[in-house]
Amino acid sequence: MNRRVLLASRPTGLPRVENFAFDSAPIPEPGAGEVLVENIWLSIDPFIRGRMNAGPSYARAMEIGEVVVGGTVGRVIRSNVAALEPGDLVQGQGCWQQYSALRVADASELEPGVLPTWKLDPQAFPARFALSTLGMPGLTAYVGLHDIGQLRSQDTVVVSSASGAVGSVVGQLAKIAGARVIGIAGGPQKCSFVAHRLGFDAGVDYKAPDFEARLRQACPHGIDLYFDNVGGTVTDACMSLLNTHGRVVLCGQTAHYNMESLPPGPDRSLLLRVQILLGRLNVRGFIVSDHWHRREQFLADAAPLVTSGRLQLQEHIAQGLDAAPGALIDLLQGNSFGKVLIQIAPESGE
Amino acid sequence: MNRRVLLASRPTGLPRVENFAFDSAPIPEPGAGEVLVENIWLSIDPFIRGRMNAGPSYARAMEIGEVVVGGTVGRVIRSNVAALEPGDLVQGQGCWQQYSALRVADASELEPGVLPTWKLDPQAFPARFALSTLGMPGLTAYVGLHDIGQLRSQDTVVVSSASGAVGSVVGQLAKIAGARVIGIAGGPQKCSFVAHRLGFDAGVDYKAPDFEARLRQACPHGIDLYFDNVGGTVTDACMSLLNTHGRVVLCGQTAHYNMESLPPGPDRSLLLRVQILLGRLNVRGFIVSDHWHRREQFLADAAPLVTSGRLQLQEHIAQGLDAAPGALIDLLQGNSFGKVLIQIAPESGE
Repeated sequence: MNRRVLLASRPTGLPRVENFAFDSAPIPEPGAGEVLVENIWLSIDPFIRGRMNAGPSYARAMEIGEVVVGGTVGRVIRSNVAALEPGDLVQGQGCWQQYSALRVADASELEPGVLPTWKLDPQAFPARFALSTLGMPGLTAYVGLHDIGQLRSQDTVVVSSASGAVGSVVGQLAKIAGARVIGIAGGPQKCSFVAHRLGFDAGVDYKAPDFEARLRQACPHGIDLYFDNVGGTVTDACMSLLNTHGRVVLCGQTAHYNMESLPPGPDRSLLLRVQILLGRLNVRGFIVSDHWHRREQFLADAAPLVTSGRLQLQEHIAQGLDAAPGALIDLLQGNSFGKVLIQIAPESGE
Repeated sequence: MNRRVLLASRPTGLPRVENFAFDSAPIPEPGAGEVLVENIWLSIDPFIRGRMNAGPSYARAMEIGEVVVGGTVGRVIRSNVAALEPGDLVQGQGCWQQYSALRVADASELEPGVLPTWKLDPQAFPARFALSTLGMPGLTAYVGLHDIGQLRSQDTVVVSSASGAVGSVVGQLAKIAGARVIGIAGGPQKCSFVAHRLGFDAGVDYKAPDFEARLRQACPHGIDLYFDNVGGTVTDACMSLLNTHGRVVLCGQTAHYNMESLPPGPDRSLLLRVQILLGRLNVRGFIVSDHWHRREQFLADAAPLVTSGRLQLQEHIAQGLDAAPGALIDLLQGNSFGKVLIQIAPESGE
């Protein structure tokens, strides 16, 4: 049987464990062009929260009773695809369950926002990295910095959620490119981590009462590129420090994912537009699933950095599918530290 | 003597005539590298409002007692510059006065935001066009559409303040490039003008009670490029119709220039960021004075269009320096129609 986690009800605000339900279903039959995979690693990412709401955004919403969406690494058990055989490791959108039938197709043939299925080389790097530094979060950092943010070596770069799966790669890639990098994170432990372990020029704690003053002090020449993973007051503080012709990469707005209504006034949307106008800013949003074509170049650039230890990762690993709802809730509250993964089967196969 | 209009006090909200004072001063002496000019045409532009506030933005604020800033076309009376001689026509930042000593220098040597002094060829086009279609507003439209907005022939373009000096050129240049163009303006007269005289595909009246429905109807395939001159509710309506990967050119925010405080909540700044993120939008602000180097190419492209009548202009001309304060107040209220000019001396010289 196939143990699964379903969306039981839509959350209002922060999800609660009651929004999830566990069940067991028959192991799925792979159709034509599909492989049956036993999932080993499940990736917990902020985007999942968005899919729990009704109504489509850039991808369709989950239905009530549907298996919760998520990226996975697993082992092929049965294959209807010439390029894959039993025992192969693959990454894909296996969702919150033990066994998945994954379609193997070009990204352009998939529904918007669906993670494609790719074969992994177990010799190249630990397979679970395909869910973090060398997977979707890493590609997000790479595309956001280079393609969207047009990173230059002389930039002062500020990144929020700096110790997270995306932010930690953003900061390290920017440092490697020669930029000055400030990471914003919650609490002294995460700030110390980005400054002393990851080599950022500074880590600034957004929970500190003098956060804005500390940020200003850490950016004596202003901000050229702000990589925004969070929104909220952190983003307000960064906007006011942007240099003329500065760039803002809008990658995530996690501060707002659990909001039930807009915050009280005044309405500062016009202030934001006036900042963009007078600062001649370039503000761009992006979704990584528009950029899968950059994966090959990204891996060519980033895999050697991981192998050599220049690109590091903090992992937050929990065991068993039952841990998944709590792990997502922790992530959305900023209570986890680093890339959140759930191990749902041993790496070695049965 | 030199009759002048000074900033008497800073307005709160919409300027009033009491904020301006008239005086007479000795005709200025041109210094080294300067010419003395008798001003013929004075340009009334929305940016003047911003300079009346305390505190610098992209350019320094006017001081109390200073001559009100503004672009002019005039005739050289005395010259300390080899390239100009008495009788030559020039455009420059002559401000609200009869006579000005204008510095002749490369744009890069001037204070930020100052309009450079350029010699005009009286045979090429009517000199006052150097303040409108073939001057700063025209260059604003050209740079905003092409360099900032990356106009494509298949775009649906929406422009606000569509019958104004910038908006009317934006729409006409976009039509000439093959785009579908919707103009937003206040009242049926202006809307009819952009649709029937300027050849836009539609003019939509933002004062109509069903404005949003009309705009949606005029944009059955959404909006690819929004050229924003106004901000406010007009911009809110356009943002919600933007296509994925749409572009927003922030050129002006006239709806807010006279606001004394931010409007009441809720705070929709995060909504704006979420729109940019999920829509993968590119929102760019620009100030034309960063782009004087594009003037030559702009004139090469646009002057033949003016001469052949393909690029048309509605002018709103008032007589005499005394009319300037009222003309600015009318412009900021949307009460004028087309490019606002003040004629302060006859074209033919004395």
